[in-house]
Amino acid sequence: MDDATAYAAALASAREGMAEGGIPIGASLLVDGELLAVGRNQRVQLGSAIHHGETNCIENAGRQPASVYARSTIFTTLSPCLMCAGTILLYKIPRVVIGENSNFQASEELLRSHGVEVVVLDDADTKTMFKDWIEANPRLWNEDIGEED
Amino acid sequence: MDDATAYAAALASAREGMAEGGIPIGASLLVDGELLAVGRNQRVQLGSAIHHGETNCIENAGRQPASVYARSTIFTTLSPCLMCAGTILLYKIPRVVIGENSNFQASEELLRSHGVEVVVLDDADTKTMFKDWIEANPRLWNEDIGEED
Repeated sequence: MDDATAYAAALASAREGMAEGGIPIGASLLVDGELLAVGRNQRVQLGSAIHHGETNCIENAGRQPASVYARSTIFTTLSPCLMCAGTILLYKIPRVVIGENSNFQASEELLRSHGVEVVVLDDADTKTMFKDWIEANPRLWNEDIGEED
Repeated sequence: MDDATAYAAALASAREGMAEGGIPIGASLLVDGELLAVGRNQRVQLGSAIHHGETNCIENAGRQPASVYARSTIFTTLSPCLMCAGTILLYKIPRVVIGENSNFQASEELLRSHGVEVVVLDDADTKTMFKDWIEANPRLWNEDIGEED
């Protein structure tokens, strides 16, 4: 599976989240060319404070040894928050492919400072989808990133 | 409730985790002098890659607005990993009280660089408990912190 297909899985999961009434941020984890897991933000669906797109994807991948993470790329529709970036650093995932960072950006410098390769696709469809969603759901979005209304 | 009592709740949760066969790291969240939540590492119990002591505690606290986190202190038996530190930074928890950092330390500089107050109790009981546990469970511990065996 190539990067474009793995990213499409993350974006499809974000759109599924939106259809569920959730926050539309999705992620996928590619290891040795195979999709190990897909995930999406579960704040609304599970009432969760820790299941963001990337962390939910890593949770769905299950308990893995360091050697698996070392061969992985994580795809995410939105630039990671500090929690998700910290999770990527904990497990030493060497490469992060980001759909867009115009609606949010908090951790790319931190990731790069630890040697993580950060690729920003600047995907127009993702950007428009998420911008429209934020405009319709400002309070939920602020809650998700720990900001006051 | 004072700091010592809140810390005792985190340590008790760590010991409960050990009794369950889990990784003995516990946490508690104090808001306005009341214990909002307690949590512990759930790698073994839930097969989880993201429920560390601190993240499980924050999950157990439920969805909260930024104003609640802003008045909170998180207590943890072990110095936070980068995932847990990132979670503390995401939610702008202003104060972290750590039982011990002699068995593990990865994020105190990052936390302080973001203005978080970091207090290390250097608690002898916690240190001994965790050192003994690591010596008996080196593979599980390495998995939890993303290290190769």
